[in-house]
Amino acid sequence: MLGRVNHVGVATPSIEQWAERYRVLLGAEAVGEPFDLPAQGVRVCFVDAPNTQIELIEPLGEGSPIHGFLARNPAGGQHHLCYEVPDIHRAKAWFEEQGMRVLGEPRIGAHGTPIFFVHPKDMGGVLTEIMESPRGEH
Amino acid sequence: MLGRVNHVGVATPSIEQWAERYRVLLGAEAVGEPFDLPAQGVRVCFVDAPNTQIELIEPLGEGSPIHGFLARNPAGGQHHLCYEVPDIHRAKAWFEEQGMRVLGEPRIGAHGTPIFFVHPKDMGGVLTEIMESPRGEH
Repeated sequence: MLGRVNHVGVATPSIEQWAERYRVLLGAEAVGEPFDLPAQGVRVCFVDAPNTQIELIEPLGEGSPIHGFLARNPAGGQHHLCYEVPDIHRAKAWFEEQGMRVLGEPRIGAHGTPIFFVHPKDMGGVLTEIMESPRGEH
Repeated sequence: MLGRVNHVGVATPSIEQWAERYRVLLGAEAVGEPFDLPAQGVRVCFVDAPNTQIELIEPLGEGSPIHGFLARNPAGGQHHLCYEVPDIHRAKAWFEEQGMRVLGEPRIGAHGTPIFFVHPKDMGGVLTEIMESPRGEH
């Protein structure tokens, strides 16, 4: 059902501070430009490892959904895990048939393709993002 | 400095329960046989995604280092992130030169190669395992 791990989401109070650390760890060219996703209340920065990505996520605005996580984990930490699927609507129907809780309707995610989240309680405590693979990369 | 993400470590109160879920999510052949690592106080089970692995970790014995994590996260959750390096001793020296805290001496990990952990406070809150790549896979 699920494909490759597109990224590991890591929440942080400061992308700027940790992007610098990742430049040292994975190379300057591995760290992308940060950008805002106002509809989702986050600012993000993708870091390339050889086989997957780390998505650094910083709160954007007072209603950011990651304020709660950072209140519990002030230094930041692993926040979610994102798997690719070929078709987001078929994936949503499949998760619902399995009795797993899909959080909201598919919407455009940080990579420009549709995504949804699955409730962590149905995934062993792991907040799970399901992302349609970019076209041509199926 | 760091190579591929070897695995995402996910702590769970029950490998048996969640291995079944991962068989449905990633295919029966993706889920390995669980095995005990008594020296580390954990029982582990590797699950293959196409580009990396999920390591399910369950406490083994009363002194297991993941009891505290499961007390804070009873449903389980993302516990650590493991990167490969070509040479564990060079990697340890490098982290120490950077002023990052290496937790103990290199020891044999779940894949049979030497590993160490880096303090989460030096990695944006992410407990980080550094693992020497299996021979022939550099």
